[in-house]
Amino acid sequence: MTVKAYGTTAADQPLAPLVIQRREPGPEDVQIEIAYCGICHSDLHQTRSEWEGTIYPCVPGHEIVGHVSAVGAAVSKFAIGDTVGVGCMVDSCQHCSSCAEGLEQYCETGNTLTYNSPTQDPPGHTLGGYSDQIVVDEKFVLRVTHGEEHLAAVAPLLCAGITTYSPLRHWNVGPGQKVGIVGIGGLGHMGVKLAHALGAHTVGFTTSESKRADILALGADEVILSKDAAQMAEHAGTFDFILDTVGSSHKLDDYTTLLKRDGTLCLVGAPGHPHPSPEVFTLIMGRKAIAGSTIGGIAETQEMLDFCAEHGIVSDIELIPAGQINEAYERMLKSDVKYRFVIDSASLT
Amino acid sequence: MTVKAYGTTAADQPLAPLVIQRREPGPEDVQIEIAYCGICHSDLHQTRSEWEGTIYPCVPGHEIVGHVSAVGAAVSKFAIGDTVGVGCMVDSCQHCSSCAEGLEQYCETGNTLTYNSPTQDPPGHTLGGYSDQIVVDEKFVLRVTHGEEHLAAVAPLLCAGITTYSPLRHWNVGPGQKVGIVGIGGLGHMGVKLAHALGAHTVGFTTSESKRADILALGADEVILSKDAAQMAEHAGTFDFILDTVGSSHKLDDYTTLLKRDGTLCLVGAPGHPHPSPEVFTLIMGRKAIAGSTIGGIAETQEMLDFCAEHGIVSDIELIPAGQINEAYERMLKSDVKYRFVIDSASLT
Repeated sequence: MTVKAYGTTAADQPLAPLVIQRREPGPEDVQIEIAYCGICHSDLHQTRSEWEGTIYPCVPGHEIVGHVSAVGAAVSKFAIGDTVGVGCMVDSCQHCSSCAEGLEQYCETGNTLTYNSPTQDPPGHTLGGYSDQIVVDEKFVLRVTHGEEHLAAVAPLLCAGITTYSPLRHWNVGPGQKVGIVGIGGLGHMGVKLAHALGAHTVGFTTSESKRADILALGADEVILSKDAAQMAEHAGTFDFILDTVGSSHKLDDYTTLLKRDGTLCLVGAPGHPHPSPEVFTLIMGRKAIAGSTIGGIAETQEMLDFCAEHGIVSDIELIPAGQINEAYERMLKSDVKYRFVIDSASLT
Repeated sequence: MTVKAYGTTAADQPLAPLVIQRREPGPEDVQIEIAYCGICHSDLHQTRSEWEGTIYPCVPGHEIVGHVSAVGAAVSKFAIGDTVGVGCMVDSCQHCSSCAEGLEQYCETGNTLTYNSPTQDPPGHTLGGYSDQIVVDEKFVLRVTHGEEHLAAVAPLLCAGITTYSPLRHWNVGPGQKVGIVGIGGLGHMGVKLAHALGAHTVGFTTSESKRADILALGADEVILSKDAAQMAEHAGTFDFILDTVGSSHKLDDYTTLLKRDGTLCLVGAPGHPHPSPEVFTLIMGRKAIAGSTIGGIAETQEMLDFCAEHGIVSDIELIPAGQINEAYERMLKSDVKYRFVIDSASLT
């Protein structure tokens, strides 16, 4: 089937309208008419080939929400008209130990990402959510129970939401804990909302005093200006868990120092240039850890969507038509968005 | 009381006989006639002031075994003649959350180390186990149940043993797991023995093919030559836990790559120069962690000693008279010892 999309044919080209092919739905497939798609920083990296291995044409987008427009004969969980979402993955091996545990994000044979992954479908690699329709195995389709009026703001939950929710849950963040969120952007603003909703005393770290009021409004109990050494020192040894969403190189010791004994600093951003080498003595003298985490499994993504619906949590977004994607990329590079751009897919026509 | 010891009065001086003062045993004190004291690499660092803050005269030694020679009126756990040990700590605050949990090694107000820590006793800082007698609060005295014939080889358990046992236990190493020990020296050879006794499939990493047979003899199920990239690659993603005992700067990515999802690389050595900055992507894509750990609490040290007695585990040692300490230091720098020097305290006379 022929589908309208927005993407690019080369690293040095802007995004522009494209027409792409999708497979017809197979027996276990769900076809989704996309309503909205969030813009993730990964989309920019991929389209510009800033990471190795971008395959063109590249249609990015992995924060997808919409409505079921067709289902295969064997589909049991979804019906036409259902409100659904698709995140960063559209397939995985389904038999490795990670998949068996519902952790498809760590599939040991390599999962199929929503865009730029090898596939049997034309043109041989997956094409993402900056498009009108997508066809996905029902195992990788999520149910959305937020009201329709919130649908655009639900889209970023599919990547920014689950990327922060999964480590907060894995490290058992909850009441009685003091939890930090470093970097208040697309991921970090979700981290603040989710840590707060999970019951933790939530602290936002920012380099910009001007963001204080906004971060408190997101649900933070405290805000720490990370470049103020005195403020940082006051909190030494007091955090149970710190989620670091910053994708650029920075000094991790500033945060390991703030952890309690047995605390973890969890990184969800991989910097283009290495962080300064972390001080080992700080880890040793408090049995502390520096860990990493990526997105979440399908079952946990559904859990996160249900948790967010129950707690009235959505992303803070700026809705744009597809024609403004290139401009949005430039603004995203300057962190000039509160906190996520979302594409109105109706504008693809 | 006047006690014979061996120590140094300046960073650039060799160790030599000294006479030191010990407090008379108070109500809760145990006086111990030291039989043997292990030589830890920390002793060398401290006597030479390679770490900041060495106070002179410096009498090192925190792998102490001997027999109770006097007890205070309120001592309830020990009697004259009992075989006992003292490790790296002789006191802690006893009221912080770490002490309350029996984790005196992470005492939040700062514990009193066996040597070079501030104390009320003359000369104002603690003096360690390269000496004839020591006086210690009974809370920091351990019971030794190994046979007397093994006593010299028990001494290194008090630091090298507990430093490896504690992280192996904390990260629940046991049957069905594949566990690596990096660096087969004083700490690492204990790590191999302990991981094996805990039931894990134990793998020793070494840079030296010539050590293979020795490492297998210690109890390793496999030995990997860490500089052989092909051997290392064969084991990618297969380790549950890796204990890294190497104190010098090296590439941690070599080992994080070998971890399974959710695996931990635990460092127990702090390098003088930073390790190359670890690759974050490897951590993120497997929810892996780099952590640190130091010695162990008093209750856990007793558990370790009992475990070792039950499993017939002691350190592999070379027994020396005090007059050979300086020579032993030079040989230790060249890793020319299997695997720990122990001083025969009778030679202090």
